[in-house]
Amino acid sequence: MADRAQTNGFSIIGKPLAMADAVSKVTGIGKYADDLSVPGMLIGKILHSPYPHARIRSIDTSRAEALNGVKAVATGQDAPNPYGILPIGHDERVFAVDKARYIGDNVAAVAATTAEIAEQALDLLRVDYERLPAWFDPEESMKAESDWIHEERAHNIEKEYHHVFGDPDQGFAQADFVAEERYYAGEVNHAAMEPHSTLAIWEPHERLTVHSSTQVPFYLHRTIAEVCEMPMSQIRVIKPLIGSGFGGKSEIIPLEIAACVLAKKSRKPVKITYTREEVFLAHRGRPITIVYLKVGITRAGKIAAVQARVVQDGGAYCGYGPVTVLYSGALLGAIYDIANVRYDGFRVLTNKPACGAMRGHGTVNVRFAFESILDQLSHQAGLDPLEVRRRNLLKAPCITANSLRVTSYGLPECIEKVFERSNWKGKKGKLPYGKGIGVACSHYVSGAANPIVRSNMPHTTVYIKIDRDSAVTVYTGASEIGQGSDTMQIQIAAEVLGVCTERIKLVGADTELTPVDLGSYSSRVTFMAGNACLNAAKDMRDQLFAAVAKKLGCSPSDLVAKNDRVSHVSDPAKSVSFDEAVAIALEFHGALVGRGTYAPPEAARGGKFRGAGVGPSPAYSYSAQVAEVTVDPETGHLHVDKVVAAHDCGKALNPLTVEGQIEGSVYMGFGQALQEDMIWKDGRLMNPSLLEYRIPGTKENPDIESIIVESVDPEGPFGAKEAGEGSLAATIPAIANAVYDAVGVRINSVPITPEKILEALRAKEKALATSKPPPEKSSAPGMAR
Amino acid sequence: MADRAQTNGFSIIGKPLAMADAVSKVTGIGKYADDLSVPGMLIGKILHSPYPHARIRSIDTSRAEALNGVKAVATGQDAPNPYGILPIGHDERVFAVDKARYIGDNVAAVAATTAEIAEQALDLLRVDYERLPAWFDPEESMKAESDWIHEERAHNIEKEYHHVFGDPDQGFAQADFVAEERYYAGEVNHAAMEPHSTLAIWEPHERLTVHSSTQVPFYLHRTIAEVCEMPMSQIRVIKPLIGSGFGGKSEIIPLEIAACVLAKKSRKPVKITYTREEVFLAHRGRPITIVYLKVGITRAGKIAAVQARVVQDGGAYCGYGPVTVLYSGALLGAIYDIANVRYDGFRVLTNKPACGAMRGHGTVNVRFAFESILDQLSHQAGLDPLEVRRRNLLKAPCITANSLRVTSYGLPECIEKVFERSNWKGKKGKLPYGKGIGVACSHYVSGAANPIVRSNMPHTTVYIKIDRDSAVTVYTGASEIGQGSDTMQIQIAAEVLGVCTERIKLVGADTELTPVDLGSYSSRVTFMAGNACLNAAKDMRDQLFAAVAKKLGCSPSDLVAKNDRVSHVSDPAKSVSFDEAVAIALEFHGALVGRGTYAPPEAARGGKFRGAGVGPSPAYSYSAQVAEVTVDPETGHLHVDKVVAAHDCGKALNPLTVEGQIEGSVYMGFGQALQEDMIWKDGRLMNPSLLEYRIPGTKENPDIESIIVESVDPEGPFGAKEAGEGSLAATIPAIANAVYDAVGVRINSVPITPEKILEALRAKEKALATSKPPPEKSSAPGMAR
Repeated sequence: MADRAQTNGFSIIGKPLAMADAVSKVTGIGKYADDLSVPGMLIGKILHSPYPHARIRSIDTSRAEALNGVKAVATGQDAPNPYGILPIGHDERVFAVDKARYIGDNVAAVAATTAEIAEQALDLLRVDYERLPAWFDPEESMKAESDWIHEERAHNIEKEYHHVFGDPDQGFAQADFVAEERYYAGEVNHAAMEPHSTLAIWEPHERLTVHSSTQVPFYLHRTIAEVCEMPMSQIRVIKPLIGSGFGGKSEIIPLEIAACVLAKKSRKPVKITYTREEVFLAHRGRPITIVYLKVGITRAGKIAAVQARVVQDGGAYCGYGPVTVLYSGALLGAIYDIANVRYDGFRVLTNKPACGAMRGHGTVNVRFAFESILDQLSHQAGLDPLEVRRRNLLKAPCITANSLRVTSYGLPECIEKVFERSNWKGKKGKLPYGKGIGVACSHYVSGAANPIVRSNMPHTTVYIKIDRDSAVTVYTGASEIGQGSDTMQIQIAAEVLGVCTERIKLVGADTELTPVDLGSYSSRVTFMAGNACLNAAKDMRDQLFAAVAKKLGCSPSDLVAKNDRVSHVSDPAKSVSFDEAVAIALEFHGALVGRGTYAPPEAARGGKFRGAGVGPSPAYSYSAQVAEVTVDPETGHLHVDKVVAAHDCGKALNPLTVEGQIEGSVYMGFGQALQEDMIWKDGRLMNPSLLEYRIPGTKENPDIESIIVESVDPEGPFGAKEAGEGSLAATIPAIANAVYDAVGVRINSVPITPEKILEALRAKEKALATSKPPPEKSSAPGMAR
Repeated sequence: MADRAQTNGFSIIGKPLAMADAVSKVTGIGKYADDLSVPGMLIGKILHSPYPHARIRSIDTSRAEALNGVKAVATGQDAPNPYGILPIGHDERVFAVDKARYIGDNVAAVAATTAEIAEQALDLLRVDYERLPAWFDPEESMKAESDWIHEERAHNIEKEYHHVFGDPDQGFAQADFVAEERYYAGEVNHAAMEPHSTLAIWEPHERLTVHSSTQVPFYLHRTIAEVCEMPMSQIRVIKPLIGSGFGGKSEIIPLEIAACVLAKKSRKPVKITYTREEVFLAHRGRPITIVYLKVGITRAGKIAAVQARVVQDGGAYCGYGPVTVLYSGALLGAIYDIANVRYDGFRVLTNKPACGAMRGHGTVNVRFAFESILDQLSHQAGLDPLEVRRRNLLKAPCITANSLRVTSYGLPECIEKVFERSNWKGKKGKLPYGKGIGVACSHYVSGAANPIVRSNMPHTTVYIKIDRDSAVTVYTGASEIGQGSDTMQIQIAAEVLGVCTERIKLVGADTELTPVDLGSYSSRVTFMAGNACLNAAKDMRDQLFAAVAKKLGCSPSDLVAKNDRVSHVSDPAKSVSFDEAVAIALEFHGALVGRGTYAPPEAARGGKFRGAGVGPSPAYSYSAQVAEVTVDPETGHLHVDKVVAAHDCGKALNPLTVEGQIEGSVYMGFGQALQEDMIWKDGRLMNPSLLEYRIPGTKENPDIESIIVESVDPEGPFGAKEAGEGSLAATIPAIANAVYDAVGVRINSVPITPEKILEALRAKEKALATSKPPPEKSSAPGMAR
């Protein structure tokens, strides 16, 4: 615990450090999945359904199979086992066996000697479809009485949660101001630069080696075994360099299984790389979310009650959907001290690509709604919205109304930091028309406390080996996906062993070489793999100290490891170099291998309302942001001038990467706030390319002032907790609230386009013209179901 | 110790098992070093000296450097640090800096975009040589008064040993029969099918990854660091598939360093693969050996005294030479109970390629001499030569006259087995003229007890990891070179953990991924890495048993692991599958990693006469062989009809591979006995190709009856000891003795060619014609020095 409480005197922790894989990426020497090529490799291509909902009567593969160069054609019959990342949603198959459920659903695949031949073979496949009625709007889909997308999911409802904490009715009765609004968030995709790609290599002895662009190599390992009906020990999954994931590679993506099925069938290496259109069709992004939100506050600005009805447009398969809707409820109120919350969440199936986990999973759209309505209520009550947030803070450590255990809580400091740095006092309500400032807060988990599959297992294990040349090797299952997890673990090992980072090599995310880690999702890696690495390094340090202490004639507790030396804490004469310490320890122990595991403590695994076992987290991060905007009332054009973003990451192990994560989160929130939106027409995506689906470029992104707040979590490695996702959710409502400050209209629908602003301004003008005040409080339909 | 004493009830140990890498070799999917290729790879070529001894005045590289496509030219100035496998012989440099010492010595190298350009560049190099007197005959070289090959080695003597055990003079005085002979053995090369090949890849961050056909990746690792002046942690050595070594890849071969120097200089990947001629020039094979041997026996057939003077033609560099000449002395008499031995060994430098370690290192040529003279003396004394061997056996366990510790001794059983199976009694002395039968014995070490570099370090460490899918991974530094070391370790781990071999994967011989092992030489791997693997598996089994015992409510000592289950030894109700055991243990321990190390016990490290620290071994293997031959007296043609070969390997972990090793050893001995010989003319090798240097093909090899004898060594893993080399040394004298039995002439020079047989027959005829008996005893000149 000493290492966790320690806040200064570090050699490497807390210092800005370039990413361990930076050079290999910058020089191009590093290999992403699609860069890989092996002799005799075939190219795989997938046939996608042209219909949103259609029974498959038959598939004639004969003409495709007869084409010269085609080595395998696979359909649903070749791999009928269902799979899914969650135990509750085993509803996917690599290729449709009964019906296709969205435009783009996977129907068959071919492996051929060239991409051209594979494409040609796809044209030769004859599928006899019977079209079925399809559902595209989640609120309509919930009303369906027939033609359910999955027969076992009545009314197309995949999952619903109904939680009540405290007494919301009494809370609303005590409230002085109550607002009810309907919020809408469009659908967004991760738009990772690297498209999905998988190379599956069939090998002698019925072995399969799979290189795949995945955030979850160990889940993939298990799923391939299930679907291909092979022992896991015959399968090796290797994660190459990843061109970011943002959650889009945290589920099993059909091409990963398709490549394996084709490799097994052809007994050859098969590579499949998605086109950008296929990336959009594989999707797993943030769902269209409709939030009916009712919040009441007292005259003093205390939140008295919250009631939310959330409908998420899940698409055609379960995926991580139940987690999305669970997180929406679990995190809705838990950032503040709110006693009374009612939550009704619905994950609804539609005939569209499946949604899933995306940066800020489950929190972003409800946070937009909540932080917007809180701003609205503050103004109604005549209170400063930032001050209202101050008045609703938790008193940590504490347990929230919905049983989440908060052990460190840097939100107060985040709020004060953005208050100061943005000159909130000098600006709020004092800017000219068209200029505005807005505040919002957010929080996020540091990983789910329970693994998705089975409990009472370590989330992660790390081994550390020291060889005779004193080289330290860290073996970790954790998946570097661009977020810096390799660098983080190298830093931790170097700090504990008291050596420079150059001594440390890392072998990562290879199911054959490294121990298990659950994967890079839910911002779990720094907390879980970081703690496992810390424990492994301490185990190794204990071994070094035991041997060196004997040699130096002192107690192991007298020793410190620092600056590539092991030394007596008070007697400078007793000191050996790290090389000498290793030689002594090798003589003493014979070999040097340390191990560390980590699983969150029982107390962090949640109480009564921990939902499907994935809700609670061992620690929560906090953010506060202030956005400044300029709105052109003539055109509705919105420009975000600056975002001041404070994030409580517990302890910044590497400030450079924490700042990078804050900036990246703000940029991604900015993209969703202003422009990113998947446009649908009868289940067909109308903008499936990066030309049409516009993510902001470097020149469009706002100026950001990042502020790191360190609350030093007692359980986090050196006090660290989440940094990669939590900031995102504050950006959208901060911008929306700034728009209100700028031009006096509330846009309850993202993206906040010029059209929507203009429309709202015109409605406001019209209302003013008829001498009525603009509607600060609207009655939201559909709250009861 | 229970595992070592156990001789039956095994599930996997002792069962014939196909090699783990057989499929990858047979199908061609496995990669040898020369199969590897990376983008931008350059081809390296080496300039060899055309003179046997010449000072290098200057090298003009300018024209070569100017050639389009040439990326680097390296000479001695680029890598002047000397290296050598032994601390005493740091006399090699990758390229000559002062002078070239043999025809083929390495003078410079180029790396170019194609092999053709590299060859062309070699032609453009201008070297100004000053020729020096050269030495080709070792006995002449010893007399040299000037122009010594290495200035610091006076009279060209690299190393000499003078040992006296007991009182040889008194022994000879007590002998009834004394013989003195001069024996000569020609020079032979390993002739491994795979030529040496190294791919050195320069990487960002000044890193170097080296794939090399080596038996000693960890020694190579260290040597590259020394010569290239890089930290070892910046260098990764990976051993790919090896097309056998036989000792030829157990030293650092110049191309391995040359590729690294060129890669570092060009900052590119560089591959060098030797031509067959270059393989012969790199050599490190068995030296020309001249043995002046004097042995006395009593009338009862007891060996009374032995005196040997051995001169080895070492070539121009030290290499493993001191070990060769040490082993020749240490093992000369230690197979039998001989109290009085005098040994004078000389390793002499000549202007020829360096000799080194080759299968049966140091023992083969002295064994030929000793077993021949013992046959001769037996006949002189009127005793059966096989019976004479029976009368000189050790009484194990014991310490030999020269302080070698013999813990298991299967030689008596080997002798009885070949006696029976060959029908010795029915044939010896009873075959028609031209048909003959001969017997000989040999022995060998199970690895050197002390590492070459530093003492008190484990020879080898093995880690074993079990993942959540119950897959077992063995991480070993031991080098599979075709001898089956991977399979052996998989078997040991499977046996101890009670699982089928299919569950076990092995990661081997990669300095970044695996712990240290000293390498595949001196038949150390089964003994050392086998014991380390055994210890690692037991460590892992202890962890499993601790957890399962708690779960089942019993003591860990009640449990057995067998047939993929962990069960109570007497209560069948208490049993879990291996998968369940792993799940229970993971819950209990968090992670499963076992480790094992092995270093021979202090008592095995030798006494007073352990020489340079590499002499003694923790265990010795024994062989006896009977050869039957047919000699055509008209042509001198010798045909080996059959070899009955018994080998005491302690315990045959895999009888299939032990038999393969016995057969391979006999074939190799047969090749040296009859036909293999490097022909020299003024320091130039006249037969540097496999067309001219004739290794026997499948059709030429004799029939072999292999007999495995199991003495169950108390220290070996499951009782196992050496199997890969020891048999070789018995084959040559068994054949030579059979030739005597067939036609009554002794050929004291190998190879035993038809010419030599004819010459001896003519000499014998001539002697008979002059009524003198053929010379059974010759006085050997040069015994005193």
